[in-house]
Amino acid sequence: MNSVSIAGVGLMGGSFALALRKAGFRGRITGVSSPAAIEAALARGVIDEALPLDEAAAGADWIYLARPIGGILASLDALDPHVKPGALITDAGSTKRAIVDRAAAAIHRARFVGGHPLAGKESSGVEHADANLFRGRPYVLTSRDAELEPWIERIGARLVFLSPEEHDRLVAVTSHLPQLISTALASVIGTEPDAAQVAGPAALDLTRLAASPYEIWSDIFSTNAEPIDTALAAFIAKLEELRAALHSPTMEQAFDQAAAAAKALRR
Amino acid sequence: MNSVSIAGVGLMGGSFALALRKAGFRGRITGVSSPAAIEAALARGVIDEALPLDEAAAGADWIYLARPIGGILASLDALDPHVKPGALITDAGSTKRAIVDRAAAAIHRARFVGGHPLAGKESSGVEHADANLFRGRPYVLTSRDAELEPWIERIGARLVFLSPEEHDRLVAVTSHLPQLISTALASVIGTEPDAAQVAGPAALDLTRLAASPYEIWSDIFSTNAEPIDTALAAFIAKLEELRAALHSPTMEQAFDQAAAAAKALRR
Repeated sequence: MNSVSIAGVGLMGGSFALALRKAGFRGRITGVSSPAAIEAALARGVIDEALPLDEAAAGADWIYLARPIGGILASLDALDPHVKPGALITDAGSTKRAIVDRAAAAIHRARFVGGHPLAGKESSGVEHADANLFRGRPYVLTSRDAELEPWIERIGARLVFLSPEEHDRLVAVTSHLPQLISTALASVIGTEPDAAQVAGPAALDLTRLAASPYEIWSDIFSTNAEPIDTALAAFIAKLEELRAALHSPTMEQAFDQAAAAAKALRR
Repeated sequence: MNSVSIAGVGLMGGSFALALRKAGFRGRITGVSSPAAIEAALARGVIDEALPLDEAAAGADWIYLARPIGGILASLDALDPHVKPGALITDAGSTKRAIVDRAAAAIHRARFVGGHPLAGKESSGVEHADANLFRGRPYVLTSRDAELEPWIERIGARLVFLSPEEHDRLVAVTSHLPQLISTALASVIGTEPDAAQVAGPAALDLTRLAASPYEIWSDIFSTNAEPIDTALAAFIAKLEELRAALHSPTMEQAFDQAAAAAKALRR
């Protein structure tokens, strides 16, 4: 491929552009984004040129959708008439089923591969874009693609292939559930005005995610509600089980089992 | 005071001895502990002498109970006939009501002040004892004491006065609830064998506590079951509220409220 268009030049899209360059990509990189993001991206040399989506799509061999999920869905609705026949469209959205379904319905003249780089930073925006953001991190693809895969490896990410449904079920448990837990715990602690007097690392670690901006979560909840509901139900059932076991020797087995799971997660 | 006896010379008791020394205490420090802990404590110069509890108590102006909660309760049952009249007994247990109640029933010849230094380390044992462990950390006392308070300040801790009931209610929410959450989340994630492929910082941060040894938690659960049950009930109710709000605009308010609470906890 000779030209890539990045729609949404923020932390993720900007980092993908920088990572491609670092990995040896010599073609043209165009950006589709807000005026402020475009200005910062041009100033940092992250993109070569800014264009509206239809013009960017018309000249691109690859289209990388790094907008919020709602923006990705809207882009998919708009892109098909404008793409080069046979171009590759991929995305970096945090949920996959809704996006892959939409692409199947809306994209006919190009091929679509769903993607989710499990990488990030506390700070957002192209100002914090980083060519090494994906290094050593998992990068989920929802289907195989002989052109895309080598580049994902070249930017240092670890390829993981999952169906959209599998992906969404796993991130519901490993990412969306932790967010809701942190939000709920911060709320409960907030009902005790003196809690800060005795709060230690446990309370601080578990409420850190509660500061996450709602904007990104709104789209995640609306596109992954069912797996999240299932994960919440399983978690609440487990908590009720521990609650009933506060006075019981089965608590020790529950601790041992959880400790083994926590260890396995770190392997 | 001229002599202190530390019952339980582990991370906490050993650190208290080292912190007293650093703060200028020149008297005798005796230790009551397991043979292995005593050997390590003598080798590091943490204590001057090892004695059985009754002999240590007989010669001590202060008795510092730094055993696990069950050991503190057993010590309180045994100490009264042996203490110097008017001596101070204090403790470092993670729950307070059961301990303060037991002291009120069992200690008549000395005075008792419940204590909980909110300090710790990942590694336990007197080998990791540290004169600066309490520096900048809250140190809860359940009653005022003109002799004890200045030393708590001299070792660099921040004095917090709470009734045993208030203390136990607050730590149920800020410490015991986070532990059970982490244990439950690790268990739920453990049901997904592929979770490690996509687990990011959120899953790792929230399951770290799940590796905690059950021994220390067993005593905490049995001496603080009611506040923990109340905290679990409030947390589960909040999660059910978020679950019902997955499709509702009230979720944004819940996020904003939790973010504000998380921020307040860090002030």
